[in-house]
Amino acid sequence: MERIRVQSDLSFSRIIHGHWRLADWNYSVKMRMELIESCLELGITTIDTANIYGNYTCEALFGEVLALKPELREKLEIVTKCGIKLANGKNGVHLNHYDSSKIHIIGSVEQSLKNLQTDYIDVLLLHRPDVLLNPEEVAEAFRELKQAGKVKHFGVSNYLPSQVDMLNAYLDVPLVTNQIELSALYRDHFENGVLNQCMKENMAPMAWSPLARGKLFTGEDIQASRVRKALERAAADMNVQTIDEVAYAWLMHHPAKIMPIVGSGKVERIKAAVHALSLEFSREQWYEIWVASRGKNVD
Amino acid sequence: MERIRVQSDLSFSRIIHGHWRLADWNYSVKMRMELIESCLELGITTIDTANIYGNYTCEALFGEVLALKPELREKLEIVTKCGIKLANGKNGVHLNHYDSSKIHIIGSVEQSLKNLQTDYIDVLLLHRPDVLLNPEEVAEAFRELKQAGKVKHFGVSNYLPSQVDMLNAYLDVPLVTNQIELSALYRDHFENGVLNQCMKENMAPMAWSPLARGKLFTGEDIQASRVRKALERAAADMNVQTIDEVAYAWLMHHPAKIMPIVGSGKVERIKAAVHALSLEFSREQWYEIWVASRGKNVD
Amino acid sequence: MERIRVQSDLSFSRIIHGHWRLADWNYSVKMRMELIESCLELGITTIDTANIYGNYTCEALFGEVLALKPELREKLEIVTKCGIKLANGKNGVHLNHYDSSKIHIIGSVEQSLKNLQTDYIDVLLLHRPDVLLNPEEVAEAFRELKQAGKVKHFGVSNYLPSQVDMLNAYLDVPLVTNQIELSALYRDHFENGVLNQCMKENMAPMAWSPLARGKLFTGEDIQASRVRKALERAAADMNVQTIDEVAYAWLMHHPAKIMPIVGSGKVERIKAAVHALSLEFSREQWYEIWVASRGKNVD
Repeated sequence: MERIRVQSDLSFSRIIHGHWRLADWNYSVKMRMELIESCLELGITTIDTANIYGNYTCEALFGEVLALKPELREKLEIVTKCGIKLANGKNGVHLNHYDSSKIHIIGSVEQSLKNLQTDYIDVLLLHRPDVLLNPEEVAEAFRELKQAGKVKHFGVSNYLPSQVDMLNAYLDVPLVTNQIELSALYRDHFENGVLNQCMKENMAPMAWSPLARGKLFTGEDIQASRVRKALERAAADMNVQTIDEVAYAWLMHHPAKIMPIVGSGKVERIKAAVHALSLEFSREQWYEIWVASRGKNVD
Repeated sequence: MERIRVQSDLSFSRIIHGHWRLADWNYSVKMRMELIESCLELGITTIDTANIYGNYTCEALFGEVLALKPELREKLEIVTKCGIKLANGKNGVHLNHYDSSKIHIIGSVEQSLKNLQTDYIDVLLLHRPDVLLNPEEVAEAFRELKQAGKVKHFGVSNYLPSQVDMLNAYLDVPLVTNQIELSALYRDHFENGVLNQCMKENMAPMAWSPLARGKLFTGEDIQASRVRKALERAAADMNVQTIDEVAYAWLMHHPAKIMPIVGSGKVERIKAAVHALSLEFSREQWYEIWVASRGKNVD
Repeated sequence: MERIRVQSDLSFSRIIHGHWRLADWNYSVKMRMELIESCLELGITTIDTANIYGNYTCEALFGEVLALKPELREKLEIVTKCGIKLANGKNGVHLNHYDSSKIHIIGSVEQSLKNLQTDYIDVLLLHRPDVLLNPEEVAEAFRELKQAGKVKHFGVSNYLPSQVDMLNAYLDVPLVTNQIELSALYRDHFENGVLNQCMKENMAPMAWSPLARGKLFTGEDIQASRVRKALERAAADMNVQTIDEVAYAWLMHHPAKIMPIVGSGKVERIKAAVHALSLEFSREQWYEIWVASRGKNVD
């Protein structure tokens, strides 16, 4: 599978497997292991998770697999996140909020390492832009984690350009990625400078909800209907069976080297994303979907 | 006429003549030649056109003049554009879309050179921000065209700051201009950072639709009525006959060195723009029109 | 009191006293002197005024104090502003507008020096972003004023990031502050890149209307009610009597080193702001007020 190199010592598989709903699948550890092995067979080596996924349970479910089969670890790039505190009724937090303090970042990483049963994280992302982010403090936390070998690279998620610029001004090593929402139904980051900054700063973006949380298939509003029809037309032209392949390929056709995060537990759906790698768009085909999403022709 | 120097080897006449509607005028080649000669007599040496103007016909109408009187060529700066593909019923394009691929840029320039019957273009603009713009590919196309002597300078049109920053990060030579919509009725680029970037990057902007497509004269909405009255008051104060002069002068009073594109085929209207160069605004007069456009006082 | 260092030779007191309404208080010169002395006793050394405050009268009211007790001058950092021309029925101005011409800047400073009865201004701010700002001309004015020793440092007020970037590109010495509206009811600059730029460029911001012009206490709309309740809860938790202390502390908890401008003539209210310096927020407490202001949880 195509790989996206973002640093001399870091590359991602073009398709990323996402663990957002890993807990929901109710898979045994054996099933989880088989799923990861299936990903690896397809060339997917990058796994996206977060400390809070599954109400703080997904990392450990993944860690059980790594403990059971330790040789998997070095074949994978593990991306996890910190910075959100969820009010989950158990941890003494009463209101969801953000925390990018040094104590939180380092504490969260220590916990992630335990959960994941590994001794390093490939990429740590700040999950949301914390209004109270202190860039000096974050830089210090990142420096210590890197020097201790606990985290190799750092990135952000859901950041706007002014937030990336500000944080990069304080960091020793630039952010390697911005994980953002991108789909044929959610075009904001195509138009607000986020993808432009990714290209300018050589930060290949990861796309979450690349299928708009299923709305591409089932959304009933007028935009979803228009986009679904355009995807169906393209699928027919390309001779593919399902529109998810077209939706993934549509994102990957963009020059920013978008890496879709596929959050499915079914190998068939993951294979659809991999198959998307072989689809080619003409510019006119690509803009048909763009125009369907906008609801008006380009100017 | 005042000239705006943007590079050591490139300057524009402050007033630019625009060929957007050249085909609509139904002028004989002799009339087109006389129009260009009238421009030159007035000091207007910069001509703005585009591959697609007049449904792909305007460049050739201009080229006929250059073929008829080749000595005109070296007296002019020719600005043309590429990057839009129009569905015109003949070229196999079914949906208007953008194309900034290397093959399109180079192919479009080759065609423009044939149409214009010249062997170089002074400035090539990317006509609209292509969502799929690949900055490495554009940089390569620009480099080849420059090395071949086919295009001397490059710019953009209708670009937002993040798009200019991104593209400039990849180019050997910075963009020389951003051609944008600017008028007393369309203030967006005064307020969204575009003109600030032009001043920061020393990219003198060209203004299209400086008279808001005639809406300054005939618009019936409340904003157009307010602005028209303010322009009429200023015209009376300045002792000029028509509000177009005031509207041009209002743009040129801005420190970004805005170059209005005058898209008229009538020498009288072009002379009005040239006459605008001699008008002086006090700041209070200028802000009267600004406030009329906003519909509320400054804070 | 904590001080905020923005240049090697410039620091501000964390709390700034504001003279916006100095004329409204109808204080005798003795009362004004006592007020300033009370500020100094509290550690407040930075005074914010503007040429136009009190319809061009506040600077002189302050200057009378400095003339009466000249030893005060060197204990203070005086911040004043220029760039707005008010239509006040006397000065021949008929429409409020902005002016950042060299002649206005230098003339306004000369007048401010007379009004303030001093021979230097610590920091001169451009009061509003003038659409017609010519950065070369402003740079020239600033250079002359600095060389003449009349103004030591320069900043802006109510500027957006693209305006700061543009102006900084022309100045010999970077802007030292951006004075902006910030409060628990006005979050724009937390979210639009302004505070991020302040942190990136090391420009500590000054906050005007930190109590939202009293709306925190008396506003009847739903947002004001929600925020007031949240402030009251925090005040109870922190065991403080009045919500203004909490509101000031909330701003100062932000890492951008926000300096609230306290525009009260009552020593009790100024003491409340100073007392706010000792309040500590947990992140959760801070976000409770943020969420109350937004009207929805963080994502």
